[in-house]
Amino acid sequence: MSGQPQTAMTPANSSRTVPSRFPVLEIFGPTVQGEGMVIGQKTMFVRTAGCDYACSWCDSAFTWDGTAKADIRLLEADDIYEELCETAGGEDRFSHVTLSGGNPALLAGLGEFISLLHSRGKRAALETQGSRWQDWFTEIDELTLSPKPPSSGMKTDWEMLDSIIHQLSAAGSAFSLKVVVFDVCDLDYAVQVQQRYPDVQLFIQAGNDRLDEADASVLLIHLAGRYEQLVSEVIERPSLNRARVLPQLHAWIWGNKRGV
Amino acid sequence: MSGQPQTAMTPANSSRTVPSRFPVLEIFGPTVQGEGMVIGQKTMFVRTAGCDYACSWCDSAFTWDGTAKADIRLLEADDIYEELCETAGGEDRFSHVTLSGGNPALLAGLGEFISLLHSRGKRAALETQGSRWQDWFTEIDELTLSPKPPSSGMKTDWEMLDSIIHQLSAAGSAFSLKVVVFDVCDLDYAVQVQQRYPDVQLFIQAGNDRLDEADASVLLIHLAGRYEQLVSEVIERPSLNRARVLPQLHAWIWGNKRGV
Repeated sequence: MSGQPQTAMTPANSSRTVPSRFPVLEIFGPTVQGEGMVIGQKTMFVRTAGCDYACSWCDSAFTWDGTAKADIRLLEADDIYEELCETAGGEDRFSHVTLSGGNPALLAGLGEFISLLHSRGKRAALETQGSRWQDWFTEIDELTLSPKPPSSGMKTDWEMLDSIIHQLSAAGSAFSLKVVVFDVCDLDYAVQVQQRYPDVQLFIQAGNDRLDEADASVLLIHLAGRYEQLVSEVIERPSLNRARVLPQLHAWIWGNKRGV
Repeated sequence: MSGQPQTAMTPANSSRTVPSRFPVLEIFGPTVQGEGMVIGQKTMFVRTAGCDYACSWCDSAFTWDGTAKADIRLLEADDIYEELCETAGGEDRFSHVTLSGGNPALLAGLGEFISLLHSRGKRAALETQGSRWQDWFTEIDELTLSPKPPSSGMKTDWEMLDSIIHQLSAAGSAFSLKVVVFDVCDLDYAVQVQQRYPDVQLFIQAGNDRLDEADASVLLIHLAGRYEQLVSEVIERPSLNRARVLPQLHAWIWGNKRGV
């Protein structure tokens, strides 16, 4: 959608003899998933570099704006898994891994890593905006599609989103939609999403508009107020009766700190 | 379990000609569900009176301790539904109803109300401690079983809980377990629950130990700190790798106020 280039490349094919390498920016945890369909889930995070979007309010802009370019490492699935175990303090200390970005859906070969996780008895969740399809989507245990509302400055490819949702539904995948809301136009967009995909669970999330706030307590009070406001607006809209309204728990607890 | 008597009675039979009447203490909403498996869900609440437990830290003790006895109304399913519509400001303004208590599972005839909700296209969620079975449990769309940990002063009837979980599993019901945690003994209890029911999603919730705090901002900071502490303790326990750790969002946002 945006002209923002990927900051790193992976091989388009995923041959068995030449393992894919993935641009990884962060591996951290165990922590809890702070938002969306498995909010509260104890999990590890793998954050990949590179995005096809450049949302105005992105809380992980370092994954695509070049500022963390020097930190990107090209890792094979085995390397990532090994580092997950090391970071967690042992293979037995986690059973769930969340793939986030950037947009991990840019990585054609990532199915190799998903398979590896499953072979070790770990579940895999994915967060992506729904701008690209990958066949390995159907292997994901909990997939969150978060199309971006007007305030992001991005434009939704509805035909692509239709196609992704159609394929996930046909495969019987566990997936949901999530819309981050900053203003009333974003809320109208959430209504549009709900009406276009009435059978998919929609999560509405209050956006963090204080990415530069360094005091976690100040941010907590502010974000709680924004959440309450969003709840009251959703309550006023019968078209959002089936929606779930959630905070970003990690921002409420740990503020704008990275790696938690 | 406790000697606490029910504060009101309903007919044990649910004859078609004589509709059951249910002891109702509160009908409110729309708001959002603040905890558990459908946290964030836009919903109406129906709070029934009477409980077979008397938890030391119960945040709805007025449902069983006699202090709100004068507010209990004996209502038929039709009456409750009508009041839900009035309270919401119209039948189109909600699509989800949460039944809480007290312990709504004491009410043998409540299936009448569940059927009425479904006939009007509304979903029904239930919160109960898992001390009693009712056949209408299998009609519930999202059922939360919250057995009480040691700090409550209650004693779990494991055979009953086994039986309930067996029946819900056999029926293919959507249900989960939730344990409220106040101290390390409670967390050990959560581990016990997870190990006894490894295939059921477990939610662990930080208990509210400041039920008398009148300042919502003070409570928010306090509860957020308790949540963070609970997360760090769950992270240290591999036996809780699959658990989800959640706050009570309604207490974080609205403090100890009733009816929100």
